[in-house]
Order: sequence, then C-alpha cells, then structure tokens
Amino acid sequence: MPFRVTILGSNSAIPTTKRKPTAQLLNVTERFLLIDCGEGTQMQLRQYKIKIQRISHVFISHLHGDHYFGLIGLISTMHLMGREKELHIYADPQLKEIIMIQLDASKTELAYPLFFHPLNYQATNLLYEDEKIQVKSFPLKHSINCCGFLVEEKQLERRMISEAIMEHNIPINCIPAIKAGGDFKKSDGTIISHWELTKSAHRARSYAFCSDTAYCKSIVPIVKEVDLLYHEATFKNDLEDRAAYTFHSTTGQAAEIARNANVKRLVIGHYSQRYHDLSTLLDEVQEVFPNSELAEEGKVFEIPRTYVVNS
Amino acid sequence: MPFRVTILGSNSAIPTTKRKPTAQLLNVTERFLLIDCGEGTQMQLRQYKIKIQRISHVFISHLHGDHYFGLIGLISTMHLMGREKELHIYADPQLKEIIMIQLDASKTELAYPLFFHPLNYQATNLLYEDEKIQVKSFPLKHSINCCGFLVEEKQLERRMISEAIMEHNIPINCIPAIKAGGDFKKSDGTIISHWELTKSAHRARSYAFCSDTAYCKSIVPIVKEVDLLYHEATFKNDLEDRAAYTFHSTTGQAAEIARNANVKRLVIGHYSQRYHDLSTLLDEVQEVFPNSELAEEGKVFEIPRTYVVNS
Repeated sequence: MPFRVTILGSNSAIPTTKRKPTAQLLNVTERFLLIDCGEGTQMQLRQYKIKIQRISHVFISHLHGDHYFGLIGLISTMHLMGREKELHIYADPQLKEIIMIQLDASKTELAYPLFFHPLNYQATNLLYEDEKIQVKSFPLKHSINCCGFLVEEKQLERRMISEAIMEHNIPINCIPAIKAGGDFKKSDGTIISHWELTKSAHRARSYAFCSDTAYCKSIVPIVKEVDLLYHEATFKNDLEDRAAYTFHSTTGQAAEIARNANVKRLVIGHYSQRYHDLSTLLDEVQEVFPNSELAEEGKVFEIPRTYVVNS
Repeated sequence: MPFRVTILGSNSAIPTTKRKPTAQLLNVTERFLLIDCGEGTQMQLRQYKIKIQRISHVFISHLHGDHYFGLIGLISTMHLMGREKELHIYADPQLKEIIMIQLDASKTELAYPLFFHPLNYQATNLLYEDEKIQVKSFPLKHSINCCGFLVEEKQLERRMISEAIMEHNIPINCIPAIKAGGDFKKSDGTIISHWELTKSAHRARSYAFCSDTAYCKSIVPIVKEVDLLYHEATFKNDLEDRAAYTFHSTTGQAAEIARNANVKRLVIGHYSQRYHDLSTLLDEVQEVFPNSELAEEGKVFEIPRTYVVNS
C-alpha cells in the first residue's frame, strides 16, 4: 500500500510557464487526498494521469489565490463528469461562500454531496480519521490565517507469522486474540508466546505539509520525526528580511525546522518566480539539512514501508 | 496597425491536456482586449508571450466556469506585478460579487482601479468606444444569460495623397478641411477637388465572437459581413438533438449562420471533449461554408487591411 506525494505545483504566487501554483496529491494507502489547489490543478491532475474522481478529501491551507483558485474548476469538472460520491473540503469558512456563489451564478446543482469543514487556526486539530490514517491541521504564521497538515498512518497491530500458524496448527478463530496480544495454548498445554507467533507491522508513515509560513518554531514538535516534511522556501538566505516581511521562509529556515524536528527527508517548494535555476536553493538547504530535495511538477515522493529490525 | 485574434483556449467545459477553456486575446489597433477567461488563461497569455498588463478591457460572455474561472487569477497577478492602470470588466453583474469576495478573503486591496460594467442581455448594446474602435454586446441563446461581442474599427476619414500636397503646394493648415471633405482653392483660383487630393482609408475591420449559443437566427443581421466570425460548434451534425438540449450549436449550424450573414471567414471552437480529431468537424463546417478554420491554442487570426479599389 503506497504512501506517495505527487507535486502538481511548486511555485509561489505568480505562475511561470513551467511552474504552477501549489497543489499536491497524496495517495495514502489508496486514500486520495488533495492538499491545496492552485489555478490549473485539474489540468495537472490530468497531465499526470491521476483520476480526479478518486479524490475524497481536499485540504486548503489558506485563502491566498495561489492555493485555491483551481478548486471551483475541479469541483465543476467532477460534477460534469458524473460524480456521485461525497467530496469533503477542509478550509477557511469563507471558502464555502466563495464556492457556493459561483455554483449559483452558473445555476449548477451538484449531483454529489459537498461538505465543508472549517479549519481551526488556534491549535492542532484532528480533521479526519479512519481505520488506517488520520489528518491533523496545525497553525502556521502567515499574513492571513493559514494551516499546515500532518498526515499519518495509524500503527497497525503485529502480524501473524504464517510459518508459525502451520507449525503449531493454530485455528483461524484464535488468530484475532493472538494478534491483539494473546499467547496460544496448544492441546498438550504448551504455551506459545504472542511474540513468537507474530512480527511487527511496518512502521506507521507520516507526512507534514507546511504551507506559506514565516519561520515558526512551534512547528517543530508537531512535525517531529516525520518521514517526509514539505516546508516552503520562497526565498534564498540573502532575502531573509523580505521573507520575514512577507511571512515566508528562506531555504535556511526550512532546513533548520527539518533539522530541529529530526525529520527523515525534507522537500522544499513555493519558490519565488525570481528564481529560474533552483539548484542554488537546493545547495543552501542541503548545507544545513543534507537529505533535502526540490519539489518539482510531476515529481513523486514515495515513503517506503520500513520494519523495526529483530522484532 | 493590427487586427489580430489569438486563441488561448478552444475547448468546452472540461479541459483536456491539450485544449484549454475559452479565452481569446484581441489586438485591435494596439488596444488589447480579452474575451472570456477560462481557468489557466494567465498561463496561456504567458505561454504566447502576451504582456498581461497591456490588457485594458475584459469581456465575459457568461458565468459558466469555463468562460471566467481564470479571471480572479489574472486580476491577482496583475496586482502582484504592480499594475497601476485601470482594468475594465464587462460581464454579468454577479461577477463583481464573485471577484470582490475573493479579494476580501485574501485581504487584497488592489493597487489599480477595477471597474465592472454590467451586460445587458435584452438587446444589442454599445459597451466601449474610442476614436478608433467600438465594442458591442448582443444576446445569445444559452441556458443562462449569455452575450456575444462585436468588435469594430471605425471607418477612418479619407487620407491625403502626399504627392498632391507637394504638387499643389497645400499649406498644412488647409489639410484638416480637405480631409473632412472640402476642396482646395489655389492662389490662381483653380479648384482642386477633395477626391483628387485624397484616397480612401482602409476598410473598417470587424470581428464577432459568438460564445455558447443554440442555433440563433437573430445573430445573422448583427454579424452581417464581418471580416471574421467566431461561432461555437460544440457538436458535430449527428448530435443536433444534444446541441439543442444543452443550448449549443453544431458545425452545420455555425456554418449556416456564417453563410446567411455573408461573413468573410468563419472560425469554429468550443469543442466537446469527446472529439480528439478535429478535422472531421472542419470537414462538416466547410461543406456549408468553405472559408472556415479551426480555433486552436496559439493560433493567430489576422484581419489584413484592405482598400476600396480605384478610389
């Protein structure tokens, strides 16, 4: 089961011919989540052959246009293509008004249920949860209300070792209790321990998305040790003053958050359109946090499954 | 001075990877006019190296998203790029509300004046006029209120023949009266006629844009003998029922309007996404009106200057 982030747009406010505004598609164990939806996102999804109807939840970090102007087009296209299943949108409450007035203007009555869930900008908040994953929002420091998102797999219970089932002839109806932590008592009275019969599931994987934000230390404990951190790096280090003034971050600041949070990998993005060659941004960020990469349109970041050794 | 139509988007409601939603950029004697503005129009303008700040007037035919979802992004980018000069938008009155709520959500105070001018859906209406051009709207027949646009050069007065000025030694201060229709009286009393001293200006050129519409005979007198007619042809002839049901036109209907209006050239567009090969649409339209072409992204239609012969 994948945990995969596809970059649909990597640029900041003004799109260039190559770089699009922010949008990312997550496939987390076959749940399709869209984070931000700048203008042209539906075309990018089509470009990278991602079926738009599989998207079930959309998370919009804030209401600057480069993070949501593509949403009304996506919602409309889903309708025109015959969608019937629910779509859930997590965003600033004003987004509902913005979408509804545009549906009203075109006399569109959506053929599918559309739910809006308002974000909380004051504290970390659980937005979505099912048996396998959960998504939380957390406050960022921007010129208008803005949230980051933390997407986590839940830690699965230990799995049966199939050879042990055969060896000890364990009936199927005993398996749930063993997986839940119980031992197995054989017909001759011998006890086979839970630990001998099971192995660990893969480690729960995690991804954090830090949208537009000034340098913000309070992020660190929230994104602690995630497998993959996306953090904006709109400017290079020499424009630290401009970054602070516009509530954005520099390459060095993004890297410092990654280092202090001890994350496994860092991806930067949301580049100012002044940068044509992004390799110099990557150099700066890797000086502080070597395991860093650039977000680029169409690039896919996979988080592989890993297991605790000897368990 | 050019009269040039650049196609930015040729598709109907659902964009494909190659075909974008409706938008056209007109350069009419160095006035830059944008007609419709589907999602991604600002990227298309950039792609075709058209300077967005030169656009002074935007005409939105109706409030189906594939004709205006790109406008808020264009307005925002103009602001971010430091625009100071006015922008005029001619559209359904509800568009003002849609734009303003989005500017409010991002706490954007535009650095340039933005004017909204409501369309009249009942009759032909003069929207804009200066010393060289005029733009009118006219009603179409669609599922919601929808207008077409007629863009016309004004007929310039006759021009002086420079050789005649030299030959008869005509003082500069006499020229305006001669251009306006007067004769010239030489110092020896000889009268040189206006017609001998002047030649005709080029013929006033014209373009008509017929956005989404069912077959609508009332268009014919309005677009009579235009140099270039854009008429939607969403469907091929075999889908005439579907065209009527969705208030769109077929290739044959577009061609019939062109033939009955005796226009010089026809361009069709707004193709249903079901058509991958457009040549069959062109075949159908050319059967009725041979001087027809396909709208395609990046294609430029020039209307050359012509002169009345022997005048």
